[in-house]
Amino acid sequence: MPSSGTAPEGIGLKRHFLTTLDRSAAELLDLLARARRIKSGAVRPDFRGKAMALLFFNASMRTRVSFEAGLARFGGHPIHLQPGKETYVFEHRDGAVMDGATQEHVREAAPVLSRYVDCIGVRKSDLITTGAGNADVTGSWQELRGDEFLRAFARHAGVPVVNMESNFEHPCQELADRLTLAEKLGDARGRKYVLTWAWHPKSLPLATPHSQLLSAAALGMRVVHLRPPGYDLDPEVVAVARQRAEAAGGSLEVTDDVDAAYRGAHAVCAKSHGGIGWFGKFDEERRHKESLRPRWIVDADKMGRTADAIFMHCLPIRRNVKATDGVLDGPRSVVIDQAENRLWAQVALLEHLFEEWRSR
Amino acid sequence: MPSSGTAPEGIGLKRHFLTTLDRSAAELLDLLARARRIKSGAVRPDFRGKAMALLFFNASMRTRVSFEAGLARFGGHPIHLQPGKETYVFEHRDGAVMDGATQEHVREAAPVLSRYVDCIGVRKSDLITTGAGNADVTGSWQELRGDEFLRAFARHAGVPVVNMESNFEHPCQELADRLTLAEKLGDARGRKYVLTWAWHPKSLPLATPHSQLLSAAALGMRVVHLRPPGYDLDPEVVAVARQRAEAAGGSLEVTDDVDAAYRGAHAVCAKSHGGIGWFGKFDEERRHKESLRPRWIVDADKMGRTADAIFMHCLPIRRNVKATDGVLDGPRSVVIDQAENRLWAQVALLEHLFEEWRSR
Amino acid sequence: MPSSGTAPEGIGLKRHFLTTLDRSAAELLDLLARARRIKSGAVRPDFRGKAMALLFFNASMRTRVSFEAGLARFGGHPIHLQPGKETYVFEHRDGAVMDGATQEHVREAAPVLSRYVDCIGVRKSDLITTGAGNADVTGSWQELRGDEFLRAFARHAGVPVVNMESNFEHPCQELADRLTLAEKLGDARGRKYVLTWAWHPKSLPLATPHSQLLSAAALGMRVVHLRPPGYDLDPEVVAVARQRAEAAGGSLEVTDDVDAAYRGAHAVCAKSHGGIGWFGKFDEERRHKESLRPRWIVDADKMGRTADAIFMHCLPIRRNVKATDGVLDGPRSVVIDQAENRLWAQVALLEHLFEEWRSR
Repeated sequence: MPSSGTAPEGIGLKRHFLTTLDRSAAELLDLLARARRIKSGAVRPDFRGKAMALLFFNASMRTRVSFEAGLARFGGHPIHLQPGKETYVFEHRDGAVMDGATQEHVREAAPVLSRYVDCIGVRKSDLITTGAGNADVTGSWQELRGDEFLRAFARHAGVPVVNMESNFEHPCQELADRLTLAEKLGDARGRKYVLTWAWHPKSLPLATPHSQLLSAAALGMRVVHLRPPGYDLDPEVVAVARQRAEAAGGSLEVTDDVDAAYRGAHAVCAKSHGGIGWFGKFDEERRHKESLRPRWIVDADKMGRTADAIFMHCLPIRRNVKATDGVLDGPRSVVIDQAENRLWAQVALLEHLFEEWRSR
Repeated sequence: MPSSGTAPEGIGLKRHFLTTLDRSAAELLDLLARARRIKSGAVRPDFRGKAMALLFFNASMRTRVSFEAGLARFGGHPIHLQPGKETYVFEHRDGAVMDGATQEHVREAAPVLSRYVDCIGVRKSDLITTGAGNADVTGSWQELRGDEFLRAFARHAGVPVVNMESNFEHPCQELADRLTLAEKLGDARGRKYVLTWAWHPKSLPLATPHSQLLSAAALGMRVVHLRPPGYDLDPEVVAVARQRAEAAGGSLEVTDDVDAAYRGAHAVCAKSHGGIGWFGKFDEERRHKESLRPRWIVDADKMGRTADAIFMHCLPIRRNVKATDGVLDGPRSVVIDQAENRLWAQVALLEHLFEEWRSR
Repeated sequence: MPSSGTAPEGIGLKRHFLTTLDRSAAELLDLLARARRIKSGAVRPDFRGKAMALLFFNASMRTRVSFEAGLARFGGHPIHLQPGKETYVFEHRDGAVMDGATQEHVREAAPVLSRYVDCIGVRKSDLITTGAGNADVTGSWQELRGDEFLRAFARHAGVPVVNMESNFEHPCQELADRLTLAEKLGDARGRKYVLTWAWHPKSLPLATPHSQLLSAAALGMRVVHLRPPGYDLDPEVVAVARQRAEAAGGSLEVTDDVDAAYRGAHAVCAKSHGGIGWFGKFDEERRHKESLRPRWIVDADKMGRTADAIFMHCLPIRRNVKATDGVLDGPRSVVIDQAENRLWAQVALLEHLFEEWRSR
């Protein structure tokens, strides 16, 4: 929100919400407890007079509407912006000589927006597309996993910046999934969680499966990443997830044994994602994975082998491609509740960030 | 608005506002009385904490701004969404194997949005376009008149769904036109209402003339649909309008006798629309109707034969094509008041729906 | 906001805010004093129940977000509209036979919106583009400087219309720049203000440099327009600025002497803009101006010759093209504060307009 001072340059990334990797277990537990109190009606945030800019470089439905409605329900005001369409084209590289297509540097955009609003959400993924086509990616996974734009933007912002999905992570999804697992399973520690790869015509982002793996790991579950060879997640994420799981009394396993993975599972979460080795070579990947399609769909037969597992998905889901109608419409599907929890997790996050930044 | 329960599946279509064909005369009269009370300032709705998602598959000005401003004026919050551009591409067919362009089924989209907001408006017309061109329609009139997407969406929504114009009907326009006729004519019973076809370079939707015919009929007016042969409205709408008119002491006549129709009219409403027989064959229709252009424009000469009739139009109107500047700028044009009534009718509708759904 | 009366046709342009050329020095001083009171927290506007439509024919970031956040912070509600994309295509010429691409005349659009909202902002510039390309302009400078669309729209509006940047002027930028100069320099009278042209790959609008020249002139500064031959501003603006400057004890000079201009300056404002003589011949202009690039960039060397001048820019700015990183990141750059002042100036303007129009 506007103040007459200069932009607080050099604020550490820690106080933004770009990743959960820089947050302690206790901090995340506090956030989730706050979300539950708000959802139950026990406490009521007050967002009157607060505005949040929501910068969507990509399409969205849940993220956008849950942020907008979450703010509005408690008196706040969202401002939805489509950078490069409704605004100018942004630059983020230091030292750039801007005589090409980029028109505004984040060194101006971020501090200016910070004078107008109280919080800024950014969705910038090189892989999210609308319709049937894949994206034209501009770099390798090693380059894109650093989320350079998002980090440069946050570095120059004077208000909290929230990652609404980047190449690397989708931390709001992580919070919502933790909330959902705890609601549905009670104490989730030691229960079996399967994050299963599924076939999809496109090569989908890694951010969401990363955050899903981290969500179950933090609860101390027996986490299984079930995927065909070639579809491993980012090694850093796997390492952190393993560490989190073990610290909380759980474990992490990566396997392609479909039958063994489903057996005895308490939660099955489906997610399609591209393989890091095929990154940017989407046609090649598509030819390779075509044969995997029937084996990897989540269906009643597979769910029947579980310990009456709940079925999770971040949505949107392509029906009868990643999971069958029967699974999605069945009594153990929690995908709608899971989507609802996006709102509660984010409302709690915003209230927390507003408090934290006010007291600086 | 979010609740911790599961989505209320299987709610009957009756409680949504997709059509007025499923509403009794008394219900509609109640709604209009409520609109008048709000407009007069006698009562003041309270929409604080309420959010409404407005899904526009097509362009809009009046509908969108009247909903947004109507909500905001009384403390509510609109969320404008352009499906398939800002969100994912939606599917509505049951059993679809979604390996093509569609990315999210209404079986997820509708219940998820219902967790975030208190009401959902949907404009989905296969015929509304921006600029000079006609739409590429995807089916015959017999297929499109069923508004399958809208009905599928509503079937899976847990909050009231409002039709903001579909292929078949534009029920919010009906309410606004009834309000306007009653304001301008007092007791409209037995007065003569002419809905006149007009030439237009494009083939425009049938939804609005349907709702306009129904509006005058419900008031017990002597309704005349004046159109060239080949431009009849949907037979079901004509039958319901006739029934409504007769039940309220009025009548319904369809004619191509321009002189007779205007004679003694108390209200003239201009509307261009395509002919059902040419549906999808827009070039052919355009060649056929070219000769009709001069005869069917609403001008001072024609208006001079009426009993000092008011001039109505839903807007936007192409000036000097459907009606002359003289008619639109003359003292009997009520088009701006008519547009304003969209807001009051919709505010009343929302207040009614919120009450109705709260008490479930 | 809706009322049951008819649209107040024929309201003079004076009461809208399309230009500052029709406002007295005292009126503008009052507006700026109000802005300072609001910014300091001494007074708090109340925009509850107020809605404003923001019609953006062009991209925006500061203008849009500062209006949206300024309204929201004090309880009001912005409605962002992209005419011709989300709405219909507008016509503004009187007597037009609308059988082409235009679908809705401002004679309907303006009064209808006036029934829904309390204020309407319009950005319509033929020269603002997104990315690297220039616009296809539809007329000569002599034609476009008249802002015919904006004026026709305002003529038919029943609520105040605010110019959010037209071809001729950007009056909200003028207010923000005056606020900034007064904040940074105290009594600016007699201090030296340099508006310097800079090279840019595109041919940018004249509206902003016009309003910037007017802002410094009104403060009685020694105003210097530093530009290469061929890059003069509109003669009417220059004449008004000279008159304003002299009335307030200042002066106006136009020069291409870079060294002399910077010497002893207290404020340097960089702005690229096209040359009126090349209007519409953008490729020709680009070839001509290529050689000017190194000489006209604002850099540390040039700033070093000033009397420790502040550096201003309206943003967005192409770094290392119009000014170097060193200047923008240096301690005398006030571009972020200047952008923040857009919000305070506009909040004051809206409060003023709401009061003025309420008392009519």
